[in-house]
Amino acid sequence: MAKFVLSVLVENKFGVLARVSGLFSARGFNISSLAVGETEDPEVSRMTIVVEADAKILDQVKKQLNKLIDVIKVQDLTGEDLIARELVIIKISAANTKNRESIIKIAETTGADVADVGKKTITIEETGDEHKINALVELLRPYGVVEMVRTGKVALQSE
Amino acid sequence: MAKFVLSVLVENKFGVLARVSGLFSARGFNISSLAVGETEDPEVSRMTIVVEADAKILDQVKKQLNKLIDVIKVQDLTGEDLIARELVIIKISAANTKNRESIIKIAETTGADVADVGKKTITIEETGDEHKINALVELLRPYGVVEMVRTGKVALQSE
Repeated sequence: MAKFVLSVLVENKFGVLARVSGLFSARGFNISSLAVGETEDPEVSRMTIVVEADAKILDQVKKQLNKLIDVIKVQDLTGEDLIARELVIIKISAANTKNRESIIKIAETTGADVADVGKKTITIEETGDEHKINALVELLRPYGVVEMVRTGKVALQSE
Repeated sequence: MAKFVLSVLVENKFGVLARVSGLFSARGFNISSLAVGETEDPEVSRMTIVVEADAKILDQVKKQLNKLIDVIKVQDLTGEDLIARELVIIKISAANTKNRESIIKIAETTGADVADVGKKTITIEETGDEHKINALVELLRPYGVVEMVRTGKVALQSE
């Protein structure tokens, strides 16, 4: 099982997300991340799907995706030269002054932003490739992660 | 129909995305955006779902979500004080020098980053709330959007 990145343009209609994700789950493929949002055309959404799959069976899935009525285009971005980014928001426990200072220092040195400062927590946001996001999460983890949300990868082909 | 923001913690297992999105599509609710990615626990993913729905029927959907075997927690973040962000990558046509300069100027003044410069295109990335992202897209649209991908909203409650 390897990791693949698919970019799927779909009509912005109800049910398309369920049908697309159903194609993967029917084969026991785990979707590592999925992001679906608007494109330049309000009628069209783009899904970026990272999936662990067997290459041969994934080829079948791609063919079936192309046959779905609301699917406009399927691009396999795996191994392409990509502009790939993720976004993370991470709320860290920061009950004492020493920890607060250390957490803000980590944000500064990694280029992350402080999104919110509360009485008991500090919330950090960061955008970057998967490696950069993972590194930030590992630096912050020892302070205690209260909550965290990641978008999953979005990507376009580099020109 | 109003817009709602749900944050759903799920077991990171195949099929859960299809089951969750199926609950919405079965009622004809359109998912405006959905982002699913890892959390602090590798066994658990967090979905952030923006959905246009009828409030009364959405309550039923939330109850049914809570009953799904791989759903750990459902939070309705609608109307809460949120740290909400989206990420966009947008590839703009930039065939002539004048346009190239204007596009880079827009990136500078809005705080967006230039992610890639090609012979015919410039790719810009930006993180912010929906309003900020929409404003950037409108500024860049006149130059010609070649491709665009958005993550959809991710959000955590502010402390």
